[in-house]
Amino acid sequence: MTKRVVVIGGVAAGMSAAAKAKRVDPALEVVVYERGPYISYGACGMPYFIAGDVPDYQDLIARTPEQMAEQGVKVHLHHKVVGIAPDAHTVTVRDGEREQEFVQEYDRLVIATGARALELPLPGADLPGLFVLRSLVDGIAVKQFLDQQSPQQAVVIGGGYVGVEMAETFRRLGLAVTMVIRSGQVMRQQLDHDVRALVEDEMARHGVDVITGTPTGFEGDGRVEGVVLEGGERLAGDVVLLGLGVHPDGIPLAELAGAALGRTGAIATDGMMRTNVPDIYAAGDCAEVFHLVTGEPDYVPLGSTANKQGRTAGENAAGGQAAFAGIVGTMVVRAFDLAVARTGLTTAEAEARGYSVRGVKIRASNRARYFPGAAPIHVKLIVDDETDRLLGGQIVGQDGVAKRVDVLATALHHRLTVADLQQLDLSYAPPFSPVWDPILVAANVVAK
Amino acid sequence: MTKRVVVIGGVAAGMSAAAKAKRVDPALEVVVYERGPYISYGACGMPYFIAGDVPDYQDLIARTPEQMAEQGVKVHLHHKVVGIAPDAHTVTVRDGEREQEFVQEYDRLVIATGARALELPLPGADLPGLFVLRSLVDGIAVKQFLDQQSPQQAVVIGGGYVGVEMAETFRRLGLAVTMVIRSGQVMRQQLDHDVRALVEDEMARHGVDVITGTPTGFEGDGRVEGVVLEGGERLAGDVVLLGLGVHPDGIPLAELAGAALGRTGAIATDGMMRTNVPDIYAAGDCAEVFHLVTGEPDYVPLGSTANKQGRTAGENAAGGQAAFAGIVGTMVVRAFDLAVARTGLTTAEAEARGYSVRGVKIRASNRARYFPGAAPIHVKLIVDDETDRLLGGQIVGQDGVAKRVDVLATALHHRLTVADLQQLDLSYAPPFSPVWDPILVAANVVAK
Repeated sequence: MTKRVVVIGGVAAGMSAAAKAKRVDPALEVVVYERGPYISYGACGMPYFIAGDVPDYQDLIARTPEQMAEQGVKVHLHHKVVGIAPDAHTVTVRDGEREQEFVQEYDRLVIATGARALELPLPGADLPGLFVLRSLVDGIAVKQFLDQQSPQQAVVIGGGYVGVEMAETFRRLGLAVTMVIRSGQVMRQQLDHDVRALVEDEMARHGVDVITGTPTGFEGDGRVEGVVLEGGERLAGDVVLLGLGVHPDGIPLAELAGAALGRTGAIATDGMMRTNVPDIYAAGDCAEVFHLVTGEPDYVPLGSTANKQGRTAGENAAGGQAAFAGIVGTMVVRAFDLAVARTGLTTAEAEARGYSVRGVKIRASNRARYFPGAAPIHVKLIVDDETDRLLGGQIVGQDGVAKRVDVLATALHHRLTVADLQQLDLSYAPPFSPVWDPILVAANVVAK
Repeated sequence: MTKRVVVIGGVAAGMSAAAKAKRVDPALEVVVYERGPYISYGACGMPYFIAGDVPDYQDLIARTPEQMAEQGVKVHLHHKVVGIAPDAHTVTVRDGEREQEFVQEYDRLVIATGARALELPLPGADLPGLFVLRSLVDGIAVKQFLDQQSPQQAVVIGGGYVGVEMAETFRRLGLAVTMVIRSGQVMRQQLDHDVRALVEDEMARHGVDVITGTPTGFEGDGRVEGVVLEGGERLAGDVVLLGLGVHPDGIPLAELAGAALGRTGAIATDGMMRTNVPDIYAAGDCAEVFHLVTGEPDYVPLGSTANKQGRTAGENAAGGQAAFAGIVGTMVVRAFDLAVARTGLTTAEAEARGYSVRGVKIRASNRARYFPGAAPIHVKLIVDDETDRLLGGQIVGQDGVAKRVDVLATALHHRLTVADLQQLDLSYAPPFSPVWDPILVAANVVAK
């Protein structure tokens, strides 16, 4: 009898799981239920679609339901799974187009319900012109609003990476931009103070006004015209973007099925992406991920991780034995002319976990200093003062940032020390690096 | 009594050794004898100086003798060490300016005599217009010749990285370029066949004519006008660049001092850069280097390695206990619009060492495929088929090559397997990488 793998959710983790399961066992029936109108899209590309770099939202879509069908994966759009009966091995699905529900049996189930953007339940929060940026539907809506309403003054609420990317996008489209951040600090969670300052300088240099504030409401006549802040200040803004982070989606569904949540509130899994419920896997932004540096489960929803988790879940749902070890906290974001990357722990994160750390931040050149286009690059290393083990790194600069941080990420995976870093035989040629790569410079300094 | 460290050679390794020794022990007297007119220059930048990217040769000079003097290091230009008496702890130095010799005592000696370009002792090899590119003097001479003689037709002999860089430089300056390579293959030693083909396509696309041939002489009336090849073919060329590789320099001097050479013909050292002669260290392009992948001493003269060896020798000459573990064979070169990088072993190198290998070469995108400027990137992984350990990697593409190969280099240092590579938490954002970094794509494919 043909076995059936059912996947709930058709974006990064879900579609990776479905495609991998079918590849591992072509005899499987693989069915995906996606409650929205799109699957398999690169949500991280939305700021660049909105900015006009990517001309068509369809460019963001890696695979259509038709393409998946050719691979033998059945995708159902506008289908929301509303119930899971783990003993019966069935899911209840609401078909949003036909407005009807049906029950589907599964042999293995992958929960890949993703995450939802945090919203602000404040007066006026339903005014047109107020957006989050999470699904492709959100992205298309923002783009349409900008095209049709031509707003002049954007307010970005929140200083995380979506906020930073959208501040850039709005500026490039010619809007005035104010970022309202509770702490007043851009990427406070992700970066050390001294590194963050470089990003804030770049934002200021490009005309982004970063202010400290907490919204208490939104006002406007038929569409948003401003944000009210704690203390009563009113901030004009005819488009407002909430970049407050996300939380896992589909959690009540998972709980109904008996799936245990972790301390973070996301679904707990083992390294094979199994939940505690037999034959039910979870992957992507609804699930926790093991953090190899802290040694604890964490909630770090990112597309790269979702794809790895999905692939692992899909392989195992198809009878394989794949394992996903976990992450080291790598992230990169573009902020105007800068790439801003981090991996591992920040100083604050390391100290909160009881480490006594020392850090250095060095400024070097991304190429041989005499080479045309050579630009400053800043490397911060955070080291366990007791063992000399690398705990984290942050790199900010123009070219050559994202993939340099990957050297540090690789180092974190294998618990390298400063002495190990100093030995690395990193590539050198004047167009690409100084003879001492900035990572080696930093390692040599922090070794002292 | 003040101790004295004498360093023979003032370029990469020598100057690193001198500067480091002085920093470690400021009470030391540190003396450098450099037989040429310049110290501390970035020889690798010469193709870009000749091309005009770097306006002045002085831009290539990191530190002048005056700047070294401020740091307390005495540099003597035009001083050639002609003898070493290890028992007496003295060197005999010929002062080329005053035309006199003197004897200098040392407590510790660092031999950093570098390498010499291989020449072709053929008829006509002394014709003006024939160049090697090794020292800054060479670079200045080539530049001057191009400026004053305006040659139209360059012949590059040899297909290594200097040949490739100079072929690019000549083309960019508007010259016709023929590369004559004995094997007819560009970077044959450094790359696998399928990767090399990408570089050869790029050379062809930019009008470089690569031919198979072995020069038997040079002809010309007062300056070079052509190259005679085996078989009698005559190749017109009014500037000829020999890029045939290098061999260690200063070897007779080292042998006179009793320093043992390795199997490669370069000076043998231990991990502290000590030769077999008490108080004599060797570093840089005159010395061997331990290859961490093969587990054997090797001869791989590169500026990045020379600097690390010099720094190690300097620290130890000053009484420290530094160790340099060795290299993994990382190299990157620009070939027109491509960056070409390798690390570890090629397939041929691995097979020659008895490994049974499997390899994959994948083509991916260097950024999210929908992101403006996304370009193909090719990643080849070479794996020990028995243990699944990574043995080597080659990457070719536009952006994002050099520092991606460094992830593989880091992996080689720590003997990672394919499964380890698949787990890596590499940075992702659309401007910098697809959601599956090309390295992960290659690892996933080679894992199958």
